[in-house]
Amino acid sequence: MIIMRLVRYTYHSNESYGILRRERIIDLPLLMKIKGRRAPKSLEDLISSGWRIDEAERLIEETSEKKIMQISVNKKEATLKAPILYPSKIICLGLNYRGHVEETGAKIPEEPIIFMKPRTSIIGPDEPIVKPIFVKKMDYEAELAIVVGKKGKRISVAEADEYIFGYTAFNDISARDIQFKDGQWTRGKSFDTFAPIGPCITMSSQIGDPMNLRLVTRVNGEVRQNSSTSNMIFNVYEIVYHLSRVMTLEPCDIIATGTPEGIAAFMKPQPRFLQPGDVVEVEVENIGVLRNIVIEESR
Amino acid sequence: MIIMRLVRYTYHSNESYGILRRERIIDLPLLMKIKGRRAPKSLEDLISSGWRIDEAERLIEETSEKKIMQISVNKKEATLKAPILYPSKIICLGLNYRGHVEETGAKIPEEPIIFMKPRTSIIGPDEPIVKPIFVKKMDYEAELAIVVGKKGKRISVAEADEYIFGYTAFNDISARDIQFKDGQWTRGKSFDTFAPIGPCITMSSQIGDPMNLRLVTRVNGEVRQNSSTSNMIFNVYEIVYHLSRVMTLEPCDIIATGTPEGIAAFMKPQPRFLQPGDVVEVEVENIGVLRNIVIEESR
Repeated sequence: MIIMRLVRYTYHSNESYGILRRERIIDLPLLMKIKGRRAPKSLEDLISSGWRIDEAERLIEETSEKKIMQISVNKKEATLKAPILYPSKIICLGLNYRGHVEETGAKIPEEPIIFMKPRTSIIGPDEPIVKPIFVKKMDYEAELAIVVGKKGKRISVAEADEYIFGYTAFNDISARDIQFKDGQWTRGKSFDTFAPIGPCITMSSQIGDPMNLRLVTRVNGEVRQNSSTSNMIFNVYEIVYHLSRVMTLEPCDIIATGTPEGIAAFMKPQPRFLQPGDVVEVEVENIGVLRNIVIEESR
Repeated sequence: MIIMRLVRYTYHSNESYGILRRERIIDLPLLMKIKGRRAPKSLEDLISSGWRIDEAERLIEETSEKKIMQISVNKKEATLKAPILYPSKIICLGLNYRGHVEETGAKIPEEPIIFMKPRTSIIGPDEPIVKPIFVKKMDYEAELAIVVGKKGKRISVAEADEYIFGYTAFNDISARDIQFKDGQWTRGKSFDTFAPIGPCITMSSQIGDPMNLRLVTRVNGEVRQNSSTSNMIFNVYEIVYHLSRVMTLEPCDIIATGTPEGIAAFMKPQPRFLQPGDVVEVEVENIGVLRNIVIEESR
């Protein structure tokens, strides 16, 4: 099976969204137009409309290969963007991998510990992570993120999958100096550019088992985190259950599910925080590589 | 001077927004229409458009009193709603009043301690605060909230006022059992209905001195919090400066500026948390009374 991934992209400075299949992006609004269907104006609207991947599969099957070539572009000629720019909320879990809980010296939580990031922190693939002048200890956190597909409250574990549209990779960039000084984690994680997401959304029916995905961070090619989502304390369905006991989940909400061990702050013999010029890659199996370069904030 | 307050309201099940002047709400879209102006479709859009109160004053002056009566309704016949439903973010300060820092036993923070609430927690005046079944220690927090009027980053204290559209009252409802168990405050403060806001937005040019406003909480008529915004550690302009060093502020962002002493959790000889049936009122001078009733969540 070829995994079809949803992307937001620009091509010759026009923005659109489409399906990444092998090396080409099939433009979804154009595909729908051929079939006389009105396309939602954004990927957010597509997700909110209750759209499902089998619709895309059928549309593609019914369309000639020649036509598909005409409405698609080579991935190399397009620029991928953050798949979602306007989530209602970005909810993040802390301390959700056993190895990470151990490296921090914390206790295994009984229920998910959460914080939120503002949407203004979102950037896409290859966009720069900006290190603020007064931040000294900037760190990465590779995470699998859930993209919510349907509004819901008090969702059971058994029903949770119905509320998940798909998954993307997430890098929960954190200013450890501010995070640890404040005690509350929010401020140190809320800087502009501190939430790289992408490069695509793999729909839940296409991801395979979301609880058995390889998750890797590389800094300048060196592996820093290397784990599997099987090491989560609360799995994706339990997370949806717990969060929806508290708040209504809405389409396009992003839920970052926590990071495994290997963050810079706890490296031995000493931390090796992110520096301007560093290339950070977060790779999640069946999603792809989310790559960003660190730059220094201008004065 | 009559303070003009902006409200979102429904009248005979039609939703609109307007200016509350004495006992009447002047419908702003209708007022603009008379003058051949196209009205923004929501209060959010009005704020984002860079609208200023002197435009409303001029429109009202140019319109006959008879016409004003025709396009206005008696406040008693209308239902006021949360003035903003779709903020990009709700940022809240913790520990920003000396008296509250003392009652918690914490240290005075050097920089603002923040957390965020999801927009799904917003309710308006007279809408019920729903006590979840598994929450035992529900508490109030009266706060002055800033409504951001203009997009900005790295805003100086001197320029901060230009970025403030106005102010509203905010009740930062908190499940203390969950807040203190988690350590991170977000989950215990993120339940649906845990962010009553309103009853109006008083524009910054109309509020008087935002650092000298009386702030009172009453539960079933009994005064629980009674302070002044003059007791804040970081004033509204310093807050805008500090937050905008971290993140881009956007129109309609809500910034809750912290609560004074007197919360239920620290009452002597013992806490008196909110219970179903309680009537909670948060009153902020020159804004008004934000009143809500507590109900139990259905099973």
